[in-house]
Amino acid sequence: MKAAIVGVTGYTGIELLRIIQGHPQLTVGTIHSYSMHKHSIEEDYPHLQGVLQLPVQPFEPEQIMAKNDLVFFATPAGVAKELAPVFLEADFPVIDLSGDFRLQDPAVYEKWYQKPAATKELLAQATYALPEFTSEYSGNLISNPGCYATAALLTIAPLIKGNLVDSTTLILDGKSGLSGAGKTLGESSHYVNVDENMTLYKLNQHQHIPEIVQQLQVWNQEITSVHFTTSLIPVKRGIFLTVYGKVKAGVTEGAIYQAYEECYQEAPFVRLQAKGQLPQLRQVTGTNFCDIGLGVNETTGIVTLVGVIDNLMKGAAGQAIQNYNRWAQIEETAGLWQVPLFP
Amino acid sequence: MKAAIVGVTGYTGIELLRIIQGHPQLTVGTIHSYSMHKHSIEEDYPHLQGVLQLPVQPFEPEQIMAKNDLVFFATPAGVAKELAPVFLEADFPVIDLSGDFRLQDPAVYEKWYQKPAATKELLAQATYALPEFTSEYSGNLISNPGCYATAALLTIAPLIKGNLVDSTTLILDGKSGLSGAGKTLGESSHYVNVDENMTLYKLNQHQHIPEIVQQLQVWNQEITSVHFTTSLIPVKRGIFLTVYGKVKAGVTEGAIYQAYEECYQEAPFVRLQAKGQLPQLRQVTGTNFCDIGLGVNETTGIVTLVGVIDNLMKGAAGQAIQNYNRWAQIEETAGLWQVPLFP
Amino acid sequence: MKAAIVGVTGYTGIELLRIIQGHPQLTVGTIHSYSMHKHSIEEDYPHLQGVLQLPVQPFEPEQIMAKNDLVFFATPAGVAKELAPVFLEADFPVIDLSGDFRLQDPAVYEKWYQKPAATKELLAQATYALPEFTSEYSGNLISNPGCYATAALLTIAPLIKGNLVDSTTLILDGKSGLSGAGKTLGESSHYVNVDENMTLYKLNQHQHIPEIVQQLQVWNQEITSVHFTTSLIPVKRGIFLTVYGKVKAGVTEGAIYQAYEECYQEAPFVRLQAKGQLPQLRQVTGTNFCDIGLGVNETTGIVTLVGVIDNLMKGAAGQAIQNYNRWAQIEETAGLWQVPLFP
Amino acid sequence: MKAAIVGVTGYTGIELLRIIQGHPQLTVGTIHSYSMHKHSIEEDYPHLQGVLQLPVQPFEPEQIMAKNDLVFFATPAGVAKELAPVFLEADFPVIDLSGDFRLQDPAVYEKWYQKPAATKELLAQATYALPEFTSEYSGNLISNPGCYATAALLTIAPLIKGNLVDSTTLILDGKSGLSGAGKTLGESSHYVNVDENMTLYKLNQHQHIPEIVQQLQVWNQEITSVHFTTSLIPVKRGIFLTVYGKVKAGVTEGAIYQAYEECYQEAPFVRLQAKGQLPQLRQVTGTNFCDIGLGVNETTGIVTLVGVIDNLMKGAAGQAIQNYNRWAQIEETAGLWQVPLFP
Repeated sequence: MKAAIVGVTGYTGIELLRIIQGHPQLTVGTIHSYSMHKHSIEEDYPHLQGVLQLPVQPFEPEQIMAKNDLVFFATPAGVAKELAPVFLEADFPVIDLSGDFRLQDPAVYEKWYQKPAATKELLAQATYALPEFTSEYSGNLISNPGCYATAALLTIAPLIKGNLVDSTTLILDGKSGLSGAGKTLGESSHYVNVDENMTLYKLNQHQHIPEIVQQLQVWNQEITSVHFTTSLIPVKRGIFLTVYGKVKAGVTEGAIYQAYEECYQEAPFVRLQAKGQLPQLRQVTGTNFCDIGLGVNETTGIVTLVGVIDNLMKGAAGQAIQNYNRWAQIEETAGLWQVPLFP
Repeated sequence: MKAAIVGVTGYTGIELLRIIQGHPQLTVGTIHSYSMHKHSIEEDYPHLQGVLQLPVQPFEPEQIMAKNDLVFFATPAGVAKELAPVFLEADFPVIDLSGDFRLQDPAVYEKWYQKPAATKELLAQATYALPEFTSEYSGNLISNPGCYATAALLTIAPLIKGNLVDSTTLILDGKSGLSGAGKTLGESSHYVNVDENMTLYKLNQHQHIPEIVQQLQVWNQEITSVHFTTSLIPVKRGIFLTVYGKVKAGVTEGAIYQAYEECYQEAPFVRLQAKGQLPQLRQVTGTNFCDIGLGVNETTGIVTLVGVIDNLMKGAAGQAIQNYNRWAQIEETAGLWQVPLFP
Repeated sequence: MKAAIVGVTGYTGIELLRIIQGHPQLTVGTIHSYSMHKHSIEEDYPHLQGVLQLPVQPFEPEQIMAKNDLVFFATPAGVAKELAPVFLEADFPVIDLSGDFRLQDPAVYEKWYQKPAATKELLAQATYALPEFTSEYSGNLISNPGCYATAALLTIAPLIKGNLVDSTTLILDGKSGLSGAGKTLGESSHYVNVDENMTLYKLNQHQHIPEIVQQLQVWNQEITSVHFTTSLIPVKRGIFLTVYGKVKAGVTEGAIYQAYEECYQEAPFVRLQAKGQLPQLRQVTGTNFCDIGLGVNETTGIVTLVGVIDNLMKGAAGQAIQNYNRWAQIEETAGLWQVPLFP
Repeated sequence: MKAAIVGVTGYTGIELLRIIQGHPQLTVGTIHSYSMHKHSIEEDYPHLQGVLQLPVQPFEPEQIMAKNDLVFFATPAGVAKELAPVFLEADFPVIDLSGDFRLQDPAVYEKWYQKPAATKELLAQATYALPEFTSEYSGNLISNPGCYATAALLTIAPLIKGNLVDSTTLILDGKSGLSGAGKTLGESSHYVNVDENMTLYKLNQHQHIPEIVQQLQVWNQEITSVHFTTSLIPVKRGIFLTVYGKVKAGVTEGAIYQAYEECYQEAPFVRLQAKGQLPQLRQVTGTNFCDIGLGVNETTGIVTLVGVIDNLMKGAAGQAIQNYNRWAQIEETAGLWQVPLFP
């Protein structure tokens, strides 16, 4: 099959391009920028010189559908909801990596994203697909989860589904590298302001909060909120999520490990760490893995979990390909199982 | 007055040297290494070439007492308890920056430090001095708090003293730069293992946990434990502490701000941030400040606080000088009020 | 004496502010932004909260002259030449840290800076003051050398003055941290584009080239050009300059060391390293030193020199204060001799 | 074919493992440590958890030869010369990535490596194989060039072969990331000593100097020495080499470009940059490319070149696989043509 990438010049778009180039059953048909003139991808990314000579083309839906079998949208919030309808009307498959189709309630989207939402009709067509918990890919619009939401949901799913902690005590403390904020220039991405620094941003206002809550409610209707914070650390890639929760009476560390093992025994991209081990951020860099470790403090009765992902892989492009693989009913790990760069 | 520094070749020792050189009422008498041969401090630290020609001398108590008015110990755990007694017997003032005299119960020290503790008699002579909460400096042995403990205690003191949160829900998530681990060589301090990485270490085993609990119990006898974690981030200096706690019924964000303002109105080194603002790590680099910001999430009922310090300043050498200033009854900010390097 | 700082919100301006606050004989009168509304300096720089409550004021020459004894311009190229004349007409001392008054020939300025130059009359009033080689401070307009030019000129002066190398073989390979490029946002200052990267920029076009040549010609009229390159490395502060030159027949390493010792024996801020030692970048961070080391390769007949400075100190604000000290005929090291932060 | 890797626990060994896992015609037979007990590779490298379950085995030549078709030595200097002979005696192919077989003259090796050299008989069997300039792979012992030597030789080969610069004026200024120094713990690899720092090390003593000279003499017998320096910059991977040379009379920039184009028109891994463009370090990270850019300064008559490689890829493991591909007479780019991780 052939895929088009819209928004190829961003970090997520270029990562999609990288993965598809190594995918055994998917190739890149055409690549597009929704805002730039035609040029070669090498002009944006000199590391591709000689490796890829694809022209970056303007956004032309007819051409995309003529030359491809599906389209990935790797565009900022607010773009895909405008560009996707023409594909959906033609029954042409769309995998969107932005937040536009993640929240079922338009009012919630508008509150958290501060932008007009997609219509209810459009939202009703979308499948929010966290692959580890999505068995059915119906319809032609797959909505890929957010990076922080992916880390959060995978790290706490067994706790919530197993009712192992008091959910009102859950704390999710997320840390992200700078690529999570994209290529936009701003004070907060200037090297001098990032290097040797750490900042907590968007306190109680991060747009992934309602996305996490929405999915938690699928697993446990009683949950109405989650306490989730986001900080920037001076690295390029990666999310390091620390989670805390009061363990329910009678729940042992062993029982928690068992719940994680059972939950993820069929999940090729979730690696539960050995007892007593916590994952380091860099062990997932460049991979589609979510590595999870945990430990219960007998004195405080609180379990600490660490979940790490690569925000551009499992948090974006890698997961989109994993969703593609499942949607296309091919091997889930196709194109995603290479040994990562280290160090 | 003249001060000796024992352990001058470590990061904390060299920071003491730096501060005292700029102190209006204190000068460096002699500097010592407890383990190395005599040499010039410039050999360890080329940045001091021409600025300071002091010889690093072996540890000789008689000489130290003859040439100085007090001694700072900037030595690893387990050293000061062996070296300090001769000074105390001679009624010679000692300010210890290690963990040796922080915990009143020797059994607790031995459990968490995995080393033999100081005797009860020695421990009874020590004043654990977090300066913002220490009004009386009796005796000749001042025990300077640990870096993480300082960040933790200052960031949560008003919550605990004001009984504003459910203390069993408190979560302290600490992040530190590499200088906190000292100059020791190991896998975890190799550049390739730190750069572009983040790690949670010593889960539920960090030796500052009992120190924090001990002081919290002074403020609120009902507290028996605290949930505190420590992670490494790729920076040289600084502790970034994020704290979470369930706000008690009827406690507003305004009431919490008021409690912090009242608690710290006389504290020159605690800077409460304006409402809606959280401190960045680097704004305290090179200073003795502890900057604190907070926000209450109305949906979850949880307050998030961020407290930042420079681990070598407010977390070690700066605080030791602040303790000296208060002990010597001179201006609390003497030697500590310079404008820091930026960026 | 009191000084005004114009352009205080930039890295160089804030560094001037820091130094003057610790200067025994100079105080800050007023601080100004030439382009922003009135506000507190703490809004730009939260690290100054509580330490400095100075208002940043608009640029008003009359007010500056009424409240101060001299003015520092820490403004981008093209600004000081517009703002300085009113002060000079009033015989009010100006120290300019920009490139506006460094080049004596307006045509050269216009070629390299791509901006209109100051008038010849204005340029004629300026003293280009590299303090180690400036004995007379006549007039009221001091032009502070550029950061790279300072590193270059100090590192090679004894070679040129002593005629020790073939000047046509000189290679100056400069590396700078990001603060050298100022606060301007651009692709090249985005964290993701700097971290784990290195770039050579402005090949054969850096505006400090004519400044270096102009001064070299003062020392040796036969020199007509210099080969100088500039690269960015992922650090915040510092210039690391590597210099190569073919040693003239009969010139030994010992003779070169001797030339450096003699040249700089009266220079408090130039630290010649011991034989066999080269300086590291960080040993000058936060200081006004220029540290120089060298070694002759007997096989190739080429001498390698390494010169390091802090671009915001010896390369800008520190040197401006050093120039002030010399101009005011006070101790050359006043305000500049503190022990720097380490690590 | 199947390959064994000896020294798999080092950075170069793990990189070989990564490449071979993605190679279409080569697989990993067995992996070995020459100094450690049997264990799983995941214990050294948690990023490989679940991806690779290979046991790290002790060094056993018989087993290696029984289960593989060739062996890669990714061992420190001094090891391969001891371990390789048993394979060579059995006519079993060896590709050595260390310095042991690079220098034809044992005395030169002993002078620069400060270790006993391989015997002349052994050295006579080795093919020093810089693939862009090696057409014949005779024998069973391939000696893979050093990382700096690779960057240096590729960046200057057309200059030397074309006699375009005065070779006595050549300056090679190399900068390397920390992985180039391997996993060994030392002061110079401690995070606090690397971050925000830059250092020139081994002045005139780097062991790649004689390797570069040896190969230059193959191209031009008149060359007797080269001036080459090495510095550390705070990045994990990559060599950034800046080269300077006096252009010979009548040689234009266009002529130099043409010489590079002709020299490398058949070289898939050398990417000459467009005129006016210089390569950034990170554009080769994770790739086997050597990217080269250049510019002539008409005023000084000096050409500046920038050559960048990934020290673990084109500087070590990638080039070893490229050599394997050529030796095995398969596609030169096999296993080496994937799109690299970015950013």
